[in-house]
Amino acid sequence: MKTLKIIKIGGNIIDDEVALHKFLEGFAKLASPKLLVHGGGKSATKLAKEMHIDVQMNEGRRITDAKTLDIITMMYAGKINKMIVAKLQANNCNSLGFSGADGNSIVSVKRPIQEIDYGFVGDVKKVNTTILKVLLENKITPVFCAITHDENGQLLNTNADTIASELAVAFANDFKTELYYCFEKNGVLRNIQDDDSVIENITTETYQTLLNEGIIADGMLPKLNNCFYALQHQVQKVCIGQPTMLFQKNIKHTTIQQ
Amino acid sequence: MKTLKIIKIGGNIIDDEVALHKFLEGFAKLASPKLLVHGGGKSATKLAKEMHIDVQMNEGRRITDAKTLDIITMMYAGKINKMIVAKLQANNCNSLGFSGADGNSIVSVKRPIQEIDYGFVGDVKKVNTTILKVLLENKITPVFCAITHDENGQLLNTNADTIASELAVAFANDFKTELYYCFEKNGVLRNIQDDDSVIENITTETYQTLLNEGIIADGMLPKLNNCFYALQHQVQKVCIGQPTMLFQKNIKHTTIQQ
Repeated sequence: MKTLKIIKIGGNIIDDEVALHKFLEGFAKLASPKLLVHGGGKSATKLAKEMHIDVQMNEGRRITDAKTLDIITMMYAGKINKMIVAKLQANNCNSLGFSGADGNSIVSVKRPIQEIDYGFVGDVKKVNTTILKVLLENKITPVFCAITHDENGQLLNTNADTIASELAVAFANDFKTELYYCFEKNGVLRNIQDDDSVIENITTETYQTLLNEGIIADGMLPKLNNCFYALQHQVQKVCIGQPTMLFQKNIKHTTIQQ
Repeated sequence: MKTLKIIKIGGNIIDDEVALHKFLEGFAKLASPKLLVHGGGKSATKLAKEMHIDVQMNEGRRITDAKTLDIITMMYAGKINKMIVAKLQANNCNSLGFSGADGNSIVSVKRPIQEIDYGFVGDVKKVNTTILKVLLENKITPVFCAITHDENGQLLNTNADTIASELAVAFANDFKTELYYCFEKNGVLRNIQDDDSVIENITTETYQTLLNEGIIADGMLPKLNNCFYALQHQVQKVCIGQPTMLFQKNIKHTTIQQ
């Protein structure tokens, strides 16, 4: 079985032109097959401000009303996705931009209204890999933005970490899939103030201890849930750290294991 | 040889929600293989206004500075392209959005500065059909927005009519290609005030007469140049008219012939 690397880059890389350029140069050189998932960073909030549209947040999560969905679609599927694809082409990596609507690749359901109405936010229901596999066989690298659809014509805003883990799981029957979450820190940190306090290995067992100790909290919680979800569904390897972990040996990062 | 229909829809259909919905319903039912190219309509100008960015025009053509290119990329490749793809999926037409950067499908060169600097505008240099053919064989319908790239990381704004004719020409060795320009009029009109004055057939010979008589002028000139360019490069059929010409028999429209 071939190895498929699924790599997710977060907002801090997207927002930093130099870091992004360096990442894409490195990514282009990685062996195929590979797949990129990107977040949106602060660009959507910035555009909303320029258009005098209020950004509503609830516990750090964006409420996606119709206008916000337009902004996200323009920014993530338009400006950022096409910029990344064009830069990868310049680095001789033949890539193709995707939302979940493209090729009907990621179908989601609008999150039901409970205490909070998150608006046009989708939870992944189904991943169709047929066309993606055809493209990977033809040495094309899919580049996913964090937008899905409900098969009834509605686009939905979906968490990019979740998209990456769902894609990794969906490919696990056909490839030895490896999932890499790249962000601005060196990995999961024991002390958030200390970038050298990387926890190099997390297992199901040690995870529980880290949770009990309150070391894993806030934004790291859903990320690690995505990691364990992937591992529980035949994904072979999950790593969290700086993008350099992909390009150089001996770069400290966190490896998650069952 | 299979027939490939390449259909271009203009701004007036994009801007009219009801017309677009009706068109996409009909388009979804057309036999595959098929390919859609869409313009952007007034949406980009509207967004520029909302963002307080000046739209500079020269003889009806947009000057594309860096900010305008961002707006076009967000609107055409983002909002409009994904909205069309999602609506086609809802109509059981498995489609996939493209800019020319995606799959390195359309390479252009930035227009040289002569009397006017059009900015980030690209003239088509090369069409790569390899991946598009793989997708068409897999019953996927490509949906193109009017953005190309220069293979060096630069996106470029490109005329949608030209993209449609260049795609038709590029496929002419593999398919019997037919090119349809859909817009709000019934075809090329003898009298622009009279929607019944459709010229049903134009040949190279009668075209010259119509030019001499001043009947073909303004926006219709580049469109007809695209038509004859396609016909001179093995495209089998070129039509101009309302979208209904695709879905019903006996709808008056203009057929261009060599």
